[in-house]
Amino acid sequence: MLTLESRLTLPAWIHERIDTRARYADDTSKVQLAITLAQHNIEDGGGPFGAAVFDSEGQLLGAGVNRVVPEQCSVAHAEMMAYLTAQAHTGRARLNQDHPGVTLATSAQPCCMCYGATFWAGIDTLLIGASAADVMQLTEFDEGPLPADWRGELEKRGIAVREAIARDDARAVLAHYAQRGGIHY
Amino acid sequence: MLTLESRLTLPAWIHERIDTRARYADDTSKVQLAITLAQHNIEDGGGPFGAAVFDSEGQLLGAGVNRVVPEQCSVAHAEMMAYLTAQAHTGRARLNQDHPGVTLATSAQPCCMCYGATFWAGIDTLLIGASAADVMQLTEFDEGPLPADWRGELEKRGIAVREAIARDDARAVLAHYAQRGGIHY
Repeated sequence: MLTLESRLTLPAWIHERIDTRARYADDTSKVQLAITLAQHNIEDGGGPFGAAVFDSEGQLLGAGVNRVVPEQCSVAHAEMMAYLTAQAHTGRARLNQDHPGVTLATSAQPCCMCYGATFWAGIDTLLIGASAADVMQLTEFDEGPLPADWRGELEKRGIAVREAIARDDARAVLAHYAQRGGIHY
Repeated sequence: MLTLESRLTLPAWIHERIDTRARYADDTSKVQLAITLAQHNIEDGGGPFGAAVFDSEGQLLGAGVNRVVPEQCSVAHAEMMAYLTAQAHTGRARLNQDHPGVTLATSAQPCCMCYGATFWAGIDTLLIGASAADVMQLTEFDEGPLPADWRGELEKRGIAVREAIARDDARAVLAHYAQRGGIHY
């Protein structure tokens, strides 16, 4: 009998350790929240990645941490979890439909899957902490192949990209994970 | 209150209209099943895309159809649904871990998101019906940007790619969808 359902969950500590009602007004506070999610996820035994979706007022629409191992699911990267739960929360397959100004903040540059998902999720701005090079230098995670002009492809479709936000903090979380001997997968 | 869960489902007709216990031995029968799923999904009011995951014996591990509109979720492409449900079914984040010989068959070339997901899902072979050019010629769906050598990037990581399998039938389903005035999203 085939399984006709996928159910993915985020840890309950998100409601306990994150201020889900605050207004994250600027780029740095948004990426700092993604980094904080990554840090908590490491403490929880998970991968060193966090992401969050915000509306035009800086209010949280969704959060994500890497859940590949606990959910036994290769799709459960931080950015995917943020898109999935933000879409479940809003009921919108394109998050910015009739609600312009949606932002994804991620602690590290999206891998090839999360990059591709970004074209369809309905965001206007992508904020990135650590670079793909940082990820590959500090951990052994593979980011996968991207188009040569990955940033230009997003911008052509109206998605603004800002990189290296709170990058030192983002790198520190990756380094902390590697020092603990965190597995890569 | 943020939503901490994503739940995605496939239609119940999959169990009624698809032989989920048959052995799909060769490339053509695998892609034909993906095309059949796409055809049924159109009849059900959905998008013209189907996909399926098979083990080394040609037994189904998971199926997928495009569920973006009913699930209000941009991630719910056919290939993603097939990966998600096959991983839920097997309990393996990498489908071919200790079980080599896993195949994804898709009615049409994966978009940039599903392409990226293919690197992490744990498949050994990717079978494709219609090409991305077919999709863009016959419908108005956007496949998104891929690396210049998208096929070589998969092969470098040990994923064999075979294209244009049952392509005429795969193109016919896309043309049928377009003739019905199907929306693109």
